[in-house]
Amino acid sequence: MTSNSGSSPLPAPKPAIILVRPQLGENIGKAARAMLNFGLTEMRLVSPRDGWPNPNAGPAASGADQVLEQAKLFDSVAEATADCAHVFATTVRKRGVTKPVLTPDAAANAIRAEPGKSAILFGPERSGLETDDVALARSIITVPINPEFGSLNLAQAVILVAYEWSKAEGLASPPATDLDPPAPQSELEGMIGQLDTMLDAAGYFFPPDRTPATKRTLRTLLTKPGWTAQEVRTLRGVLSALAGKKPRN
Amino acid sequence: MTSNSGSSPLPAPKPAIILVRPQLGENIGKAARAMLNFGLTEMRLVSPRDGWPNPNAGPAASGADQVLEQAKLFDSVAEATADCAHVFATTVRKRGVTKPVLTPDAAANAIRAEPGKSAILFGPERSGLETDDVALARSIITVPINPEFGSLNLAQAVILVAYEWSKAEGLASPPATDLDPPAPQSELEGMIGQLDTMLDAAGYFFPPDRTPATKRTLRTLLTKPGWTAQEVRTLRGVLSALAGKKPRN
Repeated sequence: MTSNSGSSPLPAPKPAIILVRPQLGENIGKAARAMLNFGLTEMRLVSPRDGWPNPNAGPAASGADQVLEQAKLFDSVAEATADCAHVFATTVRKRGVTKPVLTPDAAANAIRAEPGKSAILFGPERSGLETDDVALARSIITVPINPEFGSLNLAQAVILVAYEWSKAEGLASPPATDLDPPAPQSELEGMIGQLDTMLDAAGYFFPPDRTPATKRTLRTLLTKPGWTAQEVRTLRGVLSALAGKKPRN
Repeated sequence: MTSNSGSSPLPAPKPAIILVRPQLGENIGKAARAMLNFGLTEMRLVSPRDGWPNPNAGPAASGADQVLEQAKLFDSVAEATADCAHVFATTVRKRGVTKPVLTPDAAANAIRAEPGKSAILFGPERSGLETDDVALARSIITVPINPEFGSLNLAQAVILVAYEWSKAEGLASPPATDLDPPAPQSELEGMIGQLDTMLDAAGYFFPPDRTPATKRTLRTLLTKPGWTAQEVRTLRGVLSALAGKKPRN
């Protein structure tokens, strides 16, 4: 982060919109249109079902071609969020995951209030995000909706989140904060990977059929703090020490 | 959510959504879906281009059939708004008409604050409301939008207005969260003590004169998450596994 010569701190960067395994090119185009209406331009695609580029996306974008042209393609949610300090998962269903649940406006405030890049995950049209996708996120965004008729499509979910985010554009500068941002997701993943390896060697994952759930539990609690890059480095030093490597001196 | 036992006045009735000369049945269906997602059920149609009912509306409504079935048909905006105390016209363009211009959230507040039925007018897909339609309204609703890319379609305009209106409804209250509270400090201390002992044995604390600062750093980052009692127990299991104790089974 570069220092700011004036009085107010730099605003948080615009969030990236990440479409996870989207099915229809048309919906990718509609999401791009929804984003650009409210000033969001950074789209990331994780394993779109029909590949990328998709000829059906452009016509549905109604002129938001720049968003599609700049869209980046990834193989996994972990890679798509590697540079992000805050990951939000949009979901309408209750999950077994215990994370804070935010409305779109609360999420927009959170994105602006804290330093570091944010990513917002949107799941496939039919099924929404998988539990493992949600496990990567620090918070959940849920649009409060008619309990008797909840039928938001992908582009509608995107537009509501983008709209809320856009509300504070051009308004007073965000509150000053000199907190360091959370470490990029890739650094957190590195630490989780190191711990997994150590625990595997220690016979911690038993019985085998419960291992995925156990790993999700660990991931959830390690994602919760929002540790800074320095804190993650410290913890990796702790793990290395516990693994019997020589302490630094 | 408990109901409010009496003291507050009756809420203003739900606003009617009036589609003025809509062109495509598909868009009427999408608007119905957008409305019902946020609890609005009263649609009025003024001179739809292709007549009414329209066989393309139902499939696009994705289950919001009740809105379409109850939709009322009118020949003019004046007739469609005859029973309404407040008429709002949605438009993105500057008009020669001097009326208050509200954002969707300000309009939602106005609809709730004043007694009497409100109507919200939405124009045809391609051209929007005519000057004569806007002239019937008391206020204008404009969605603040990217000045370099304003491309909201009819259903998107409807959903943003409906969403804002719904925020003060019961469904829009912040989602319930059943997050557990952080563990008592004593349990956290127990975990930190366990880790300290292990790190001491691993030779982590070196050089000795920096040990107090290192311990403070660790304490700070372990205090940051606000882990629950269950999470602290999980972490103590992790530590025990790393210390070579037998895994639980």
